[in-house]
Amino acid sequence: MIKAGIIGSTGYAGQELVRLLMQHPDVEIVWYGSRSYIDQQYADVFQNMFQIVDAKCMDDNMDALADAADVIFTATPQGLCASLVNEDVLNKVKIIDLSADFRIKDVEVYEKWYGIKHKSPSYIKEAVYGLCEINREDIKGARLIANPGCYTTCSILTCYPLVKEGLIDPNTIIVDAKSGTSGAGRGAKTANLFCEVNENMKAYGVATHRHTPEIEEQLGYAAGYPITINFTPHLVPMNRGILATAYASLKEGVTEEQIRAAYDKYYANEKFVRVLKPGVCPETRWVEGSNYVDVNFKVDLRTHRVIMMGAIDNLVKGAAGQAVQNMNLAFGLDESTGLNLVPMFP
Amino acid sequence: MIKAGIIGSTGYAGQELVRLLMQHPDVEIVWYGSRSYIDQQYADVFQNMFQIVDAKCMDDNMDALADAADVIFTATPQGLCASLVNEDVLNKVKIIDLSADFRIKDVEVYEKWYGIKHKSPSYIKEAVYGLCEINREDIKGARLIANPGCYTTCSILTCYPLVKEGLIDPNTIIVDAKSGTSGAGRGAKTANLFCEVNENMKAYGVATHRHTPEIEEQLGYAAGYPITINFTPHLVPMNRGILATAYASLKEGVTEEQIRAAYDKYYANEKFVRVLKPGVCPETRWVEGSNYVDVNFKVDLRTHRVIMMGAIDNLVKGAAGQAVQNMNLAFGLDESTGLNLVPMFP
Amino acid sequence: MIKAGIIGSTGYAGQELVRLLMQHPDVEIVWYGSRSYIDQQYADVFQNMFQIVDAKCMDDNMDALADAADVIFTATPQGLCASLVNEDVLNKVKIIDLSADFRIKDVEVYEKWYGIKHKSPSYIKEAVYGLCEINREDIKGARLIANPGCYTTCSILTCYPLVKEGLIDPNTIIVDAKSGTSGAGRGAKTANLFCEVNENMKAYGVATHRHTPEIEEQLGYAAGYPITINFTPHLVPMNRGILATAYASLKEGVTEEQIRAAYDKYYANEKFVRVLKPGVCPETRWVEGSNYVDVNFKVDLRTHRVIMMGAIDNLVKGAAGQAVQNMNLAFGLDESTGLNLVPMFP
Amino acid sequence: MIKAGIIGSTGYAGQELVRLLMQHPDVEIVWYGSRSYIDQQYADVFQNMFQIVDAKCMDDNMDALADAADVIFTATPQGLCASLVNEDVLNKVKIIDLSADFRIKDVEVYEKWYGIKHKSPSYIKEAVYGLCEINREDIKGARLIANPGCYTTCSILTCYPLVKEGLIDPNTIIVDAKSGTSGAGRGAKTANLFCEVNENMKAYGVATHRHTPEIEEQLGYAAGYPITINFTPHLVPMNRGILATAYASLKEGVTEEQIRAAYDKYYANEKFVRVLKPGVCPETRWVEGSNYVDVNFKVDLRTHRVIMMGAIDNLVKGAAGQAVQNMNLAFGLDESTGLNLVPMFP
Repeated sequence: MIKAGIIGSTGYAGQELVRLLMQHPDVEIVWYGSRSYIDQQYADVFQNMFQIVDAKCMDDNMDALADAADVIFTATPQGLCASLVNEDVLNKVKIIDLSADFRIKDVEVYEKWYGIKHKSPSYIKEAVYGLCEINREDIKGARLIANPGCYTTCSILTCYPLVKEGLIDPNTIIVDAKSGTSGAGRGAKTANLFCEVNENMKAYGVATHRHTPEIEEQLGYAAGYPITINFTPHLVPMNRGILATAYASLKEGVTEEQIRAAYDKYYANEKFVRVLKPGVCPETRWVEGSNYVDVNFKVDLRTHRVIMMGAIDNLVKGAAGQAVQNMNLAFGLDESTGLNLVPMFP
Repeated sequence: MIKAGIIGSTGYAGQELVRLLMQHPDVEIVWYGSRSYIDQQYADVFQNMFQIVDAKCMDDNMDALADAADVIFTATPQGLCASLVNEDVLNKVKIIDLSADFRIKDVEVYEKWYGIKHKSPSYIKEAVYGLCEINREDIKGARLIANPGCYTTCSILTCYPLVKEGLIDPNTIIVDAKSGTSGAGRGAKTANLFCEVNENMKAYGVATHRHTPEIEEQLGYAAGYPITINFTPHLVPMNRGILATAYASLKEGVTEEQIRAAYDKYYANEKFVRVLKPGVCPETRWVEGSNYVDVNFKVDLRTHRVIMMGAIDNLVKGAAGQAVQNMNLAFGLDESTGLNLVPMFP
Repeated sequence: MIKAGIIGSTGYAGQELVRLLMQHPDVEIVWYGSRSYIDQQYADVFQNMFQIVDAKCMDDNMDALADAADVIFTATPQGLCASLVNEDVLNKVKIIDLSADFRIKDVEVYEKWYGIKHKSPSYIKEAVYGLCEINREDIKGARLIANPGCYTTCSILTCYPLVKEGLIDPNTIIVDAKSGTSGAGRGAKTANLFCEVNENMKAYGVATHRHTPEIEEQLGYAAGYPITINFTPHLVPMNRGILATAYASLKEGVTEEQIRAAYDKYYANEKFVRVLKPGVCPETRWVEGSNYVDVNFKVDLRTHRVIMMGAIDNLVKGAAGQAVQNMNLAFGLDESTGLNLVPMFP
Repeated sequence: MIKAGIIGSTGYAGQELVRLLMQHPDVEIVWYGSRSYIDQQYADVFQNMFQIVDAKCMDDNMDALADAADVIFTATPQGLCASLVNEDVLNKVKIIDLSADFRIKDVEVYEKWYGIKHKSPSYIKEAVYGLCEINREDIKGARLIANPGCYTTCSILTCYPLVKEGLIDPNTIIVDAKSGTSGAGRGAKTANLFCEVNENMKAYGVATHRHTPEIEEQLGYAAGYPITINFTPHLVPMNRGILATAYASLKEGVTEEQIRAAYDKYYANEKFVRVLKPGVCPETRWVEGSNYVDVNFKVDLRTHRVIMMGAIDNLVKGAAGQAVQNMNLAFGLDESTGLNLVPMFP
């Protein structure tokens, strides 16, 4: 049994990680970290865990955790993981960081977009970007895995084959993304109250959202050169789900067949990426509660653009599910262990 | 492997049954019945099943199904199961009927409340009412199991211990129940359109809802004599979940301790019934996607009444999950096989 | 023009009051009180008011306000109005208090249920309970009006005719009420976040909710003697609306005709109370955004009980609309001035 | 008093028109047309109108209606208005058509995108496109007004100033639009059931939605030459509201100041278009129930694009409100008569 510790187990992503790990055959959770609820019963915070989890919330002591666990998940705000990680810890456990601390290779870019000083820049190089479908081999040997962001997972996987195969001009990419509200976290803010979110839509972080450089970096690797894109997130009145609608100009002469072939080339053997039948648009309800990414596209011959679409559950493939997938890879388990979740509808 | 057939697999309960059985280690689905979608790919109707279910919808041929399957689930409107069942079928397979056809022992009561003629009254006596926590032993040997209604499951389990122990006057019971909209089914009716249901609450079927005699019959068995209650269902703008708030007058001198002891007596060893800590009210979100029933109560000394509360996921414990639980019992499996579902939040 | 000041104008009820008063032909708002947002543009807090309201938020100075205004609305937490009111203020302006401070005549009951010391008990007697349909004449001459609670308005008006006419035993009344989330206020609490409320139902304040004694007092006046009832509020995932489902035992021999006659007797001439046609259940969507109360009932001959139902918009008839109705009465205007609001659907 | 008739009064747009006209000081509704509900009380279909509207639904007889009314609103599916209009009718009444029949000047484009034969092509030239902020003068004298589509109103007004002033390349425009579900109409379709829409997002009609050529035509007039754009609609789980997020490449050297000046030039004096303060994104909740269009923009210097955003209530400015605005203009009333609606929140 893999012993797992979670720092930040009382946020939405942390709690989803608990849900998934409770149903994972090879994992035992040994540490429910939560600064806000120290010494309280975990199941008192999340009553869904009543009679399932019998443990108290603990503090963020990563050194103690490194002795108790085989893997540590950090589902915390930016900056915390970078401030706690050290060689001693990494010699004892693997770390899967759900925050952004180790996602971006260029520390200046990180510090500019996140507005904080990076506390452990020396580990950035070692950290592996944990997008399993793209970096599978590197993840297998990693000590420190940077779990991708929710918007980025959806955006990158939606565009990746066409960028990689050179079928679109990556600098024309515009990603218009929509997210359910669990992505906004569990903090008690007026803006996230039911009555403020319900019956409302809005864009936010326009041209400034922090997931932008993460998408640019990864798609830039696929393109082979640095790229610049537009990314606009929107808040939608639902709990879970991200839908990315991405637009790009087709390279001269590119056909619909080539595009479909590109998606099939990269995803036909990917268990968690489903390329839908022609004409079927991804919908978030069809992936809810699961680790799937549903993708599809539509060519617009009038404008010579392709509209690429992807849908994920932001808490699963966009956070906790992908973290488990990374853990499976890093520990040599079958990649889908504990993740054979049939999407729940309605 | 148990071979399972589903008649009515494209309703909400039928589809939930597919979801649960796909994750059940001992079951293989061999028949996806659906009159509305014959010959269509099941995964074209429910895209969540894409690359998970590779089968076409079939007709309602119970005789053919009896040869192909070990168990038949009928998740259809009232009347269909009763019109199809016969000795030949029952000699070959077990039937778990999610409709109301075999729930009520008094055929006149059935025909009066449902407004239809019963097609197989001779099987009513044999049928076992499949409320596992109460009829466990009878279910084990049954050929024909009447899976309880969603409202009834929640209402009965909420009140049962106090009725059984004689702590309340059962004729004073008033059940005010609220349901998510999946309980209204998948038929294309104007009244169930998003814009008609969203931002709305209403009572319906006041004093006439068909689950009333079912609750009365079962609680009457617990009381030892026939009882009459009030039951009022309400429609609430959410997908899943039933919350029952039940009121009853306490018998003279009954104490809070006696009440808690009664709940513990019947439910302390029940895996799927969680008696919450004092002061914690059941909430539907804490059972969503799972087979749990959360119950609790509050004594009001001012009025000498007890307020009993229960919450379930109407599609799981109120339909498909309970059907699987019944199947497990009937086939000698551990009762919770395939049902170790951690409630999904948010 | 009546000059109106609002203390607590940035809560949901306060903001609704602004919406209604902006559309009232005889009122000018001269004071937007809000301790939380002092000196900020009101329209920066509520962007719906952009280019409609050009004023800054001000503090809670009731003495200054009394000089500036003809009427003061206090839409604040309990205790504030009672701590600010004094003879000098009341000699200058009329006060319509949307909090509970002056609703309950027995100060001991108030202090017990609200858990705070009343700061101005000497004004309790003078204060008029502002349920217009019942206390119309007293309201006309009042200086200090206690605007009823949202649950209480709906509960009282739903039951009043049958209690007043002696058709039911008032001590058997059980009110099961459901509310949209705007009733929980605009405070930044985790429990009211979108993801905590959405897809969830729960009871709360069971047997202890503060609106209970208010309902009991008013229905007790109607009965002619003190009564005790059960009242259970529930939280439902929608913005606006309260639905009350009330149960009571019929007095011996009471007929459906008598009950309908009682509703008609009290409400046939009430503009804002609509007694629906037989068989039509009140729904919150049909009153949204308006000052209407929709009521109806169903007799259950099996249990000799009547089920009474009422629906309001909690922010209009349950708060701001009723406050305007009270203001109209107190200032000698037509009672419906500014309140001819057609319910908005969907 | 202007006598108004409505054909299609029991759809969502038709019903909203009733709500607005009931509150309009100069209008009397004389005809509630509805093929589906002929001879039924209008208030039995929409209980919000109980005791407000006392009239029965009537058929679609435009000739009879032309004698009874001064203005006819057609809120019907495409094709009906074109099949009913004739010279005799237009000599008697003004027609405001909420369908698409007369929106597009090129009949071939209409027939191609809508897939139906146009029944009255001879009236297309006379018809005035009823986007009041742009075609105000033409509307004043019109007999036949083509009320713009919901998506198109929002999309055009969001982009118009920058296209008109030549600040962007109009062929680079990509409009990613999101709509509440009332835009999908009141037909009883499985896809629009509560449980299918709730907790879901999806794109639909990708590269083929019928509002595309309407946007292209109108923005082409502003540009001075034909343009081609991408338009992608999405369905979101809420009742009302459209949010358009539009992207375009800036012409060389264009500054943020020039862009703001362009918006101010066209909208500073427009009562119903609110250009928000810098940094404030439009949100649908701030316009709900009102005739406002909220617009704003963000320049992205990294990509040399501008992100333009607009929000409307699809049933008001996107349908019934704009129709009333057109009627006011056509009848010489103040343009905002009956439309001084303060947005309702929450």
